[in-house]
Amino acid sequence: MADEFTRIAKYFAPLAGEAGRGLLDDAAVFSPPKNRDLVLTTDQMLEGIHFLPNDAADLIARKLLRRNLSDLAAMAATPLSYLLTTALPPHIGDEWLAAFAAGLAQDQAEYNIRLIGGDSSSSQAHISLSATFIGHTAPGAAISRNGAQPGDDLWVTGTVGDAALGLQARLGKLFDPTGFLTQRSLLPSPRINLPLAGIARAAIDISDGLIQDLGHMCQGAGLAATVHAALIPTSPAAAAQGSKTLESRLTGGDDYELLLAVPPAQEPALRAACGSVQITKIGFFSPGPPGAKILDSDGNSLIFKKTGWQHF
Amino acid sequence: MADEFTRIAKYFAPLAGEAGRGLLDDAAVFSPPKNRDLVLTTDQMLEGIHFLPNDAADLIARKLLRRNLSDLAAMAATPLSYLLTTALPPHIGDEWLAAFAAGLAQDQAEYNIRLIGGDSSSSQAHISLSATFIGHTAPGAAISRNGAQPGDDLWVTGTVGDAALGLQARLGKLFDPTGFLTQRSLLPSPRINLPLAGIARAAIDISDGLIQDLGHMCQGAGLAATVHAALIPTSPAAAAQGSKTLESRLTGGDDYELLLAVPPAQEPALRAACGSVQITKIGFFSPGPPGAKILDSDGNSLIFKKTGWQHF
Repeated sequence: MADEFTRIAKYFAPLAGEAGRGLLDDAAVFSPPKNRDLVLTTDQMLEGIHFLPNDAADLIARKLLRRNLSDLAAMAATPLSYLLTTALPPHIGDEWLAAFAAGLAQDQAEYNIRLIGGDSSSSQAHISLSATFIGHTAPGAAISRNGAQPGDDLWVTGTVGDAALGLQARLGKLFDPTGFLTQRSLLPSPRINLPLAGIARAAIDISDGLIQDLGHMCQGAGLAATVHAALIPTSPAAAAQGSKTLESRLTGGDDYELLLAVPPAQEPALRAACGSVQITKIGFFSPGPPGAKILDSDGNSLIFKKTGWQHF
Repeated sequence: MADEFTRIAKYFAPLAGEAGRGLLDDAAVFSPPKNRDLVLTTDQMLEGIHFLPNDAADLIARKLLRRNLSDLAAMAATPLSYLLTTALPPHIGDEWLAAFAAGLAQDQAEYNIRLIGGDSSSSQAHISLSATFIGHTAPGAAISRNGAQPGDDLWVTGTVGDAALGLQARLGKLFDPTGFLTQRSLLPSPRINLPLAGIARAAIDISDGLIQDLGHMCQGAGLAATVHAALIPTSPAAAAQGSKTLESRLTGGDDYELLLAVPPAQEPALRAACGSVQITKIGFFSPGPPGAKILDSDGNSLIFKKTGWQHF
């Protein structure tokens, strides 16, 4: 087993951008982009909580980056760089580390980001990972989750609920013949770099489930949101699992799609901004007690037992 | 047990600075200080690795902040704000959280820093914490650990080895009648805000033990360092433990004092910059195979079994 410094030199230093100083200093140093706001976010992934012990190390690495990238996407921020902390139990060896670093390298190239620092530690039993991301926007252009106005439409990117079903498939509780749902659970596609500033008045990424995250938008704006369940975009693989999975799909986490509050007049601009990314109008915001109401095709409110993914 | 969002609102949102948006958004947003370099560092603290299960929550919080502040101190950076991740097992309740938040609040005031974001999760069994700190310096003024030149003197702040002995006291292996050593282990004093730019050519904080961290300075500069053991500043409490503790004191971690490479002509400026902070010349850098040599009072090299704290 290589020691901490050998590991850093072998696996992580090659991933470092200039600000990372070869991961050989006490901290990263960089000159921030001129006349830009900085956007910072952090997210962790823990074995047994956010991933399964036997998940592939490269996919764990990529999902860690993508979860954070999704938070930047929800602010309409351009990603720049990240810091990484790892706590690894004694049984983790070179094979795992090589795959983990390869996953980081792959998504660094995919998203044009660089590692600039971090911290590594041993752990007693479980793998514990976190990343802190730095992004940037034009001054004042970061999109809050709280800015919805009455009359704004509610839009969502991509399809909703695939990852929740994919997790069930990974746990052996659901048959996923195409592997699509499993893939959506293992490797989300953050909606980064959509030019939504000036178009969306509020945005949030669906990490804890559509209902819960929409609830945050409603609380933040002091508004009600009404969603027509039939309009919620569903992948063919999710649709094939039948309507009994609706609750799972709307309350399961890990979608990493964006919910957007958009004034109706901005629809053409929204469609142009999203380009080839699927975007679907599923409801609207209105005055009323803050909260999300999901209507079935008869216009009745659907009530679910839980609203979404929570940590204690 | 309060849920994740209630906990954030109750314990962490009151600690948030403006950039943190009440911890209610997907990310922090701020306009970086004009014409400054940004300095970023991250450090974690894990139960059973970096602290003991029964350590007081407020001291754990403060040490987490201070470990990171020490990294900023080693770059001569001014601290600005931080992001926090917590992973807490189910048995952690309101009492622990209240004490933890109180510790954060105390050191936020002490060091004039603000919480601006974070992530909270459950964990299976152990507490896992990390913080990412943002600081700033004048452009190009961050001090690297690699900049020592032949002929530079080696200086160290404070006293060395107290925390290593304090850890032994906390484990019941050593009698610490005054409690001084224990306190130095539980609550380090990062040497933040010393105006060392233009005075020190290299700096590192002693987190892994003097010998190991000095070794990093030597490797980075491609130089040898010679240290006279008798010159290494020792607190009265550490001295009372006798000379047999020398190896522990020089290889134990958690001192969070600074090692500095300073040209001899800068000694008056160094003393002025350090003000009331104790500063001691303990050796010098010279051409030679990169590495640290510790000499006893007869001029013989001391050989130790281990060089410092490492994670695997």
